Amino acid sequence: MPTKQPVAIVFDTFGTVVDWRSSLIADLTAYGTSRDIEADWPALVDAWRAAYHPSMDRVRKGERPWTRLDDLHRASLDQLIADFGIQGVTEADRVHINLGWHRLHPWPDSIPGLTRLKSRFIIGPLSNGNVSLLLNMAKFAGIPWDMIFGSDLFHHFKPDPETYLGVAALLDLSPGQVMLGAAHNGDLAHARTCGLMTAFFPRPTEYGPHQKRDTKAEQDWDIVATDIQDMATQLGM
Amino acid sequence: MPTKQPVAIVFDTFGTVVDWRSSLIADLTAYGTSRDIEADWPALVDAWRAAYHPSMDRVRKGERPWTRLDDLHRASLDQLIADFGIQGVTEADRVHINLGWHRLHPWPDSIPGLTRLKSRFIIGPLSNGNVSLLLNMAKFAGIPWDMIFGSDLFHHFKPDPETYLGVAALLDLSPGQVMLGAAHNGDLAHARTCGLMTAFFPRPTEYGPHQKRDTKAEQDWDIVATDIQDMATQLGM
Repeated sequence: MPTKQPVAIVFDTFGTVVDWRSSLIADLTAYGTSRDIEADWPALVDAWRAAYHPSMDRVRKGERPWTRLDDLHRASLDQLIADFGIQGVTEADRVHINLGWHRLHPWPDSIPGLTRLKSRFIIGPLSNGNVSLLLNMAKFAGIPWDMIFGSDLFHHFKPDPETYLGVAALLDLSPGQVMLGAAHNGDLAHARTCGLMTAFFPRPTEYGPHQKRDTKAEQDWDIVATDIQDMATQLGM
Repeated sequence: MPTKQPVAIVFDTFGTVVDWRSSLIADLTAYGTSRDIEADWPALVDAWRAAYHPSMDRVRKGERPWTRLDDLHRASLDQLIADFGIQGVTEADRVHINLGWHRLHPWPDSIPGLTRLKSRFIIGPLSNGNVSLLLNMAKFAGIPWDMIFGSDLFHHFKPDPETYLGVAALLDLSPGQVMLGAAHNGDLAHARTCGLMTAFFPRPTEYGPHQKRDTKAEQDWDIVATDIQDMATQLGM
């Protein structure tokens, strides 16, 4: 157990709490079948996620004004539908497919682990998703957040310090009273720079069976766990 | 049942969901006894609440910059301790007393009614309280909000339209898909002007046994109920 305990724990969400890749592949494959739309859905999902960081970086660098992740996702989707030459995709289909990011399933340990943590700590997502995306996901998947920290509250994407420090400010806590839980060493490194406590657990199949990144802790994080259940145990729950 | 259903229901909080007056009188009376501080606590609580609207109005009119409700409460408290001539109140006492607004108890129907509504609707407070106040209150009282809409998300207090419309924007909903539940006709009138649906239920002892205001509906609100349980029933839950 760390010698100090946080008051609030916020979690990266895509990959850390929910399995975006498997969820989207299953969701879109079923939808494509029902709508008779032919596409290589796994390849589309991987390309869509690959467009994620570059699209946010254009906002972070000031090359485009503040844009919610839903709208970045939609712009990337439209481009990929054209690039992949997918035929017969209506506007209603695009809206439905884009909202696939609201219909992601949690990893098996996420709900039981978060439920345990919620009994002692304030818990919430700290995600690049917008509030409506994260809230719809929580209702869909049954994630018991106390509060939703979407990037549209700050008009900044991670790893801008305004996100990590913005959470502490809204909670009226010092950064050191807030812990970030994440399956991504880079996110934790930025949080640590801002003074937050840190917890790492790997999600070795987030990017599919051949994942190389983030398979283990790359710093001496305050907690290194196997998953959110183990994290709760290490916090004395 | 109204012919249309909302997607999200937000609630005024002080008086509507929690019984601020009885809670604070009990909390401060017990604290005063434990700390040997003599005061007319019921009179202090009533005077503190009476300072609420004038203090927010100074912010709303631009006479002072954005200030969180916790800080407005603290300034009013310091003034009242001086005005009432209360002796022996340390800085730690003032911090504890001010956080009394985070330790308010719900009306008996609030938790069961909100729990029923949460199974179909997005629910949250839309309050002049700041996020940390409302979140600490939810943890203290067991209020099962999906999301916390504190006034510090908007840097505006009700009835500024930025609050009602800001909720709809964060939820990516039209104002007409959002309902405000409140025990205050004035709050509902402003929400209706912004296009929100409206639900009224009275809290006839909010201000104590001699309350005259808001004992009944003053417009044909979409729902007029006896309490939040009845509101849930009228919404078909």
